Amino acid sequence: MDMGIWFLIGAALVFFMQCGFAMVETGFTRAKNAGNIIMKNTMDFCIGTVVFMLLGFGIMMGEHTFFGLIGSPDWTLFVDFKNFDWSSFVFQLVFCATAATIVSGSMAERTKFSSYCIYSAVISLIVYPIEAGWVWGNGGWLANLSYIDFAGSSVIHMVGGVTALIGAMFLGPRIGKYTRDKSGKVTKVNAIPGHSITLAALGVFILWFGWYGFNGAAAGDVTEMAQIFATTTVAPAVATVVCMIFTWVKDGKPDVGMCMNAALAGLVGITAGCASVDIIGAAIIGAVDGIIVDLAVEIVDKKFYIDDPVGAFAVHGVNGCWGTIAVGLFAENEKYGSLGLFYGGGFHQLGIQLLGVVCILAYTIVVMTVVFKIIAATNGLRVSEAEEIEGLDVTEHGLTSAYADFMPAAPAIGMESTGAVDLAGVAPTALTLGTALAEKSHKYTKVSIICNEDHFGELRDTLATIGVTGMTVSQVMGCGTQKGKIGRYRGVSVSMNLLPKVQVDIVVSKVDPQLVVAAAQKVLKTGKYGDGKIFVCDVEDIVKVRTGETGFAALQDESDK
Amino acid sequence: MDMGIWFLIGAALVFFMQCGFAMVETGFTRAKNAGNIIMKNTMDFCIGTVVFMLLGFGIMMGEHTFFGLIGSPDWTLFVDFKNFDWSSFVFQLVFCATAATIVSGSMAERTKFSSYCIYSAVISLIVYPIEAGWVWGNGGWLANLSYIDFAGSSVIHMVGGVTALIGAMFLGPRIGKYTRDKSGKVTKVNAIPGHSITLAALGVFILWFGWYGFNGAAAGDVTEMAQIFATTTVAPAVATVVCMIFTWVKDGKPDVGMCMNAALAGLVGITAGCASVDIIGAAIIGAVDGIIVDLAVEIVDKKFYIDDPVGAFAVHGVNGCWGTIAVGLFAENEKYGSLGLFYGGGFHQLGIQLLGVVCILAYTIVVMTVVFKIIAATNGLRVSEAEEIEGLDVTEHGLTSAYADFMPAAPAIGMESTGAVDLAGVAPTALTLGTALAEKSHKYTKVSIICNEDHFGELRDTLATIGVTGMTVSQVMGCGTQKGKIGRYRGVSVSMNLLPKVQVDIVVSKVDPQLVVAAAQKVLKTGKYGDGKIFVCDVEDIVKVRTGETGFAALQDESDK
Amino acid sequence: MDMGIWFLIGAALVFFMQCGFAMVETGFTRAKNAGNIIMKNTMDFCIGTVVFMLLGFGIMMGEHTFFGLIGSPDWTLFVDFKNFDWSSFVFQLVFCATAATIVSGSMAERTKFSSYCIYSAVISLIVYPIEAGWVWGNGGWLANLSYIDFAGSSVIHMVGGVTALIGAMFLGPRIGKYTRDKSGKVTKVNAIPGHSITLAALGVFILWFGWYGFNGAAAGDVTEMAQIFATTTVAPAVATVVCMIFTWVKDGKPDVGMCMNAALAGLVGITAGCASVDIIGAAIIGAVDGIIVDLAVEIVDKKFYIDDPVGAFAVHGVNGCWGTIAVGLFAENEKYGSLGLFYGGGFHQLGIQLLGVVCILAYTIVVMTVVFKIIAATNGLRVSEAEEIEGLDVTEHGLTSAYADFMPAAPAIGMESTGAVDLAGVAPTALTLGTALAEKSHKYTKVSIICNEDHFGELRDTLATIGVTGMTVSQVMGCGTQKGKIGRYRGVSVSMNLLPKVQVDIVVSKVDPQLVVAAAQKVLKTGKYGDGKIFVCDVEDIVKVRTGETGFAALQDESDK
Repeated sequence: MDMGIWFLIGAALVFFMQCGFAMVETGFTRAKNAGNIIMKNTMDFCIGTVVFMLLGFGIMMGEHTFFGLIGSPDWTLFVDFKNFDWSSFVFQLVFCATAATIVSGSMAERTKFSSYCIYSAVISLIVYPIEAGWVWGNGGWLANLSYIDFAGSSVIHMVGGVTALIGAMFLGPRIGKYTRDKSGKVTKVNAIPGHSITLAALGVFILWFGWYGFNGAAAGDVTEMAQIFATTTVAPAVATVVCMIFTWVKDGKPDVGMCMNAALAGLVGITAGCASVDIIGAAIIGAVDGIIVDLAVEIVDKKFYIDDPVGAFAVHGVNGCWGTIAVGLFAENEKYGSLGLFYGGGFHQLGIQLLGVVCILAYTIVVMTVVFKIIAATNGLRVSEAEEIEGLDVTEHGLTSAYADFMPAAPAIGMESTGAVDLAGVAPTALTLGTALAEKSHKYTKVSIICNEDHFGELRDTLATIGVTGMTVSQVMGCGTQKGKIGRYRGVSVSMNLLPKVQVDIVVSKVDPQLVVAAAQKVLKTGKYGDGKIFVCDVEDIVKVRTGETGFAALQDESDK
Repeated sequence: MDMGIWFLIGAALVFFMQCGFAMVETGFTRAKNAGNIIMKNTMDFCIGTVVFMLLGFGIMMGEHTFFGLIGSPDWTLFVDFKNFDWSSFVFQLVFCATAATIVSGSMAERTKFSSYCIYSAVISLIVYPIEAGWVWGNGGWLANLSYIDFAGSSVIHMVGGVTALIGAMFLGPRIGKYTRDKSGKVTKVNAIPGHSITLAALGVFILWFGWYGFNGAAAGDVTEMAQIFATTTVAPAVATVVCMIFTWVKDGKPDVGMCMNAALAGLVGITAGCASVDIIGAAIIGAVDGIIVDLAVEIVDKKFYIDDPVGAFAVHGVNGCWGTIAVGLFAENEKYGSLGLFYGGGFHQLGIQLLGVVCILAYTIVVMTVVFKIIAATNGLRVSEAEEIEGLDVTEHGLTSAYADFMPAAPAIGMESTGAVDLAGVAPTALTLGTALAEKSHKYTKVSIICNEDHFGELRDTLATIGVTGMTVSQVMGCGTQKGKIGRYRGVSVSMNLLPKVQVDIVVSKVDPQLVVAAAQKVLKTGKYGDGKIFVCDVEDIVKVRTGETGFAALQDESDK
Repeated sequence: MDMGIWFLIGAALVFFMQCGFAMVETGFTRAKNAGNIIMKNTMDFCIGTVVFMLLGFGIMMGEHTFFGLIGSPDWTLFVDFKNFDWSSFVFQLVFCATAATIVSGSMAERTKFSSYCIYSAVISLIVYPIEAGWVWGNGGWLANLSYIDFAGSSVIHMVGGVTALIGAMFLGPRIGKYTRDKSGKVTKVNAIPGHSITLAALGVFILWFGWYGFNGAAAGDVTEMAQIFATTTVAPAVATVVCMIFTWVKDGKPDVGMCMNAALAGLVGITAGCASVDIIGAAIIGAVDGIIVDLAVEIVDKKFYIDDPVGAFAVHGVNGCWGTIAVGLFAENEKYGSLGLFYGGGFHQLGIQLLGVVCILAYTIVVMTVVFKIIAATNGLRVSEAEEIEGLDVTEHGLTSAYADFMPAAPAIGMESTGAVDLAGVAPTALTLGTALAEKSHKYTKVSIICNEDHFGELRDTLATIGVTGMTVSQVMGCGTQKGKIGRYRGVSVSMNLLPKVQVDIVVSKVDPQLVVAAAQKVLKTGKYGDGKIFVCDVEDIVKVRTGETGFAALQDESDK
């Protein structure tokens, strides 16, 4: 009885994984498509619920099956509410929705929303329920063979991941992802960084948290539940550590985004065997996950030129496949099948695992290829080039931006007074300044200072002491030779670094611009690369809106008059 | 016993809904008020806890009631810790806090923080406990009538939503929300988009997750818990799908923000009947939720000109009311009352539901009107116009900004080298350039390029090949006739589109600005709308801060010297 | 048996606290280090898992201990998977990881990533397991004395908080945190605001939610679990309310960030006594937490000049210490020790609590000082100045930015048409404009308007009516005397306010710039401070990229030709 409560709590945790997927996929893609990705992640659950209720659940769990291949549709849930097994329904539903939602990441930023809705209805209506029925249904043929996939490394993740790959292939890469020469050959693979690693990390943590429900919900007793929690913790932890070391050695730095993927890869990998392997098996499965996820991401991207923005295939497809096969190697108990190869069980279970993986793979590839072909031929899969460039938030949903408001950001340091620099002895910098035009009684000059934000507070306070009463501050990225890496800035393969800078614009007339420049130099000069530049321009006229004053008067503060 | 553990876990999930509310409300409002909204959501829970402990719990759950209307205050919790029913206390407390926090969304961006604190103390101290006692208290008069509101569609959500509406009416709309002519008639309803749809979606997912606790915690056994989980999943899923279709048909596009609201509406609607209706009832309740939430948002905004920034009334008020009445239509079991109208129970239960809704509504309207009137007359409800424009983070909390740091954002593509364009055969563009002033030995020219960010990488690398060694990059929004929708850009009802662009500023002297322009053209020209513009201006002088060099020397890289 | 399920669910909630810590620490620090902080928070859990499995768990919970001081290493988990107590392992592991992760906040934004990895391995490998074994291990000497620290106020939080302080001292403050005169004396303490209060608040809510698992998981029965939930709710609620009032009175405004810290402080404070104190005790402990966290933050920052970016020592160290001692004052039952001083137990339990706190403190200080000294001497603790300025995301992880994409933000109001202002009777503003140079057939003028974003919609539409067909909009911060607080803008301690503004750049030739200025004035002028300024500059030439047109032609829309 009490495990029944946990079963449902576990289902709620699996539901929460929808939130994790939404955050991971949104974070790893661009801001202009954020609303669209959230919408897709919301709708695949909601549409999936409707169609799984209408048909999918019956096909998957129907009491009668045709040769163990497909269940007979069953609408008991509509007519006998009281006696229907709602625990099972809710549980299977949230798992089905997970398979569906994996795909949205690989198809992000260029898929027609209507086609995504059709895809997600089809996968939840018939694709997933059939193969899941083989493994988990009443009398499914793989279930009868004692195929072990406890929580769905193959049934859910491999299916989702492979579908993700097929979808990405049908769509083609995002604009700008691959630079090609005239013959169409790829000459350059470009990174398209996501708009928020923080969001992506939030999603990863939520997914890991939810995975305790995903793997643990079906535990038979507390002892098994504890063992599942242990393997479900150790595998991703080892995967992440191994990936960190692997990327550190391979690329010179520990890669943040790849480690996020590795944590998920470790979770995917342990999903099939979480109740069958021991802690050493879990650690080894995780270690392999941590390496193959990185290799798979790179091979898909750089060898096959398939654009999978969040690495859905590498994380779910590759590791789902590996995790399922690994049960045939590391199974240490006979609760759900035979012992693994390395635990004295010979090739028996391994053979079954391979058979199951191959059949599920073949089924998924065939069916999803047909599904995507039909969608492509009828509704069309991909948005137009113009829509893709403008972003799917605007074009598909009429949402101006998911981040529509200007954020009142400011240099981090120096919001409060930081004290002015002592200007004693500072002489105005000799500048070339155009003479005031004849018809002007004054010359107005704009001084634009590009500097590190760390110095902003001092700069502002120091300029105030020489009479500057207003300035406009904006964030810019400085791009230059600042880092002294001259070698990299020459020839065709040039790449200049972008560094965050503050641009401070000041328009003066009464205050000598040469003094402004001298004061700024005094504050900013450290003698190191990156001290910044100052540009001086002529301004023809100024209007102070509040008073309507123009020219010299518009620049004066109340107290100057 | 085991359901007792779940009861408390459910309470923890309901607590987590505070996080969901905070994220939804923050995401749907502007960045300048983010800290204030979070503070309000935090404080209504904390203040609510204090006052519910001091008085509210006794009024609600007191063993003795006055005519079933109000419980007698009870301070057992302070004197008999060991024997007090703390499960009940924690559970009732988190529910009470939910009612309180709903209101903060509708009153966002213009309410005095001190007044919000007073409001939240009052609602948790006496308003909510009295009406909740009617339904859930020991001997409450509606409880005695078998009024069905299992988890609070009316007790919590309708009360919160109606209070939200009253609060918004007392406050009046945010500055800029409605454009009025001189007679005060509204001529235009303006959208004020929230600053992060992503945050709002995160909040919705968290709320949905928490709702399994909200609706399910009080289940009597696992079977009922499973049924509740099923209805609590199906109703919001159907509501969201229906809303998507409804907005798609009505407005031409599936609306992201409205679908987020619809998911919540479906959850609110099923809250009263989650343990009484079957899956068909749940689906119908959800379908209605998905439509009326959209209509209610529009009517409140466009007909009544009441500014409810997050749609709190439409989501919680309208659907809470509908969900409670719907139990009288769809109740399929007699666990908590009679059968519904459509399930053979006649009008009996429907009548009770209507009576309860009317009484709770009347009570809430009268009491909250008095409460807001008193607060308005004493402390004042609304901040000053200047404070509202500057933002409540600064004015109410001395918080410069909830997003105080510049984010080092950059064009998504082209952070790495993307390869330069071949400039063979490109001739300098003939430009009109002012002659260098007599006293200058060189002319300095700023070339400002406004272009799509997708081309930035190539532009940067190509300019580097002609000797440009530094540039300043910033994000701007281009506003123009780019989309070719000329019809929309003429006459009074003009609206130009804003599209994200990159502005690249380059100051050159040795490098011919005409060559810079020609190179940029070569990279950027696709012949389509939106290719961008290039502006050329004169610069009077330049200072390189690190070395103190001015003029020509300041523009030269180390290797040029 | 059923409490065993909850024990594991509780462990999952404690795991989720890792997410909370990651969000709090990322939100309270700068955007340029966001990826690094997330990576540190991920890796301390993952590395901690590996080393705790290899050695830590045995040292902490080993069946044999040496004099109750240190357990004998135990590798049963590798050899007897079936009979090992995995519930205990998972539970102790997630607690251990909490102690480790507290430290990352105080060492944020300047620690070498490799050194952080070493630190987190060491604390999970031997430091935490030894002192935790004293209190919770089999035969630990403090356990034998009936030292009460139910869930780890001292064992986890005080240890983490004190280690955080030691780490911050060894590192020294972030660049820019303290302004010093030539003798090295601090003349100014600068605030370095975090980049997202919203993220920080999300983290706080997640932590509070997870804390029900942290404090409640080890409850012996449902009654105790309910009592723990009650004390764990009341203490942080009271702490937050008290802190709000305290900062309101002390600083004039209720402080958002400090209230977030206070909620956590209340949770830390109640952790030791959550199962021993009654509701009044919980409230008093919370009230004290709410005040001392604020005082501790200020003293550490302003008196000792130790830079703890997230207040880890104040929250966890100070309140962990206080909470543990408080059990000796308020213990109202004898489940885990004697009664407290105020509940008739005399000084007995208080003495034991003080003894434990002192010993754990001494152990932590000595060991962690040695550990940091060794790391500093070998690998080095701190990144270089250049790396710190550039940000750890780039320098430590090769991550350009955690927020790499430009967000297509726009003024919140006016995305849709808002209607143009009637310009009847408006005359061009008389401006000083340079005559067109001889070789130009036209003069081109740039009008830059700096104004409040609220007026943007009207401005755009009004300018369209006079023939302006394109503009560039960007977000800037205006810094000036707008607020009329003249007194603050003079002398050395000057501080100008930064306010969010919109900069609208328009380049015209055919359209009279004087008319543009007049129209803008008509829209923007309210007569109040902050109406903005308009700058007029000369532009030498313009190129329209799509067509290649230059000069006058480049400024004309299709329909003009």
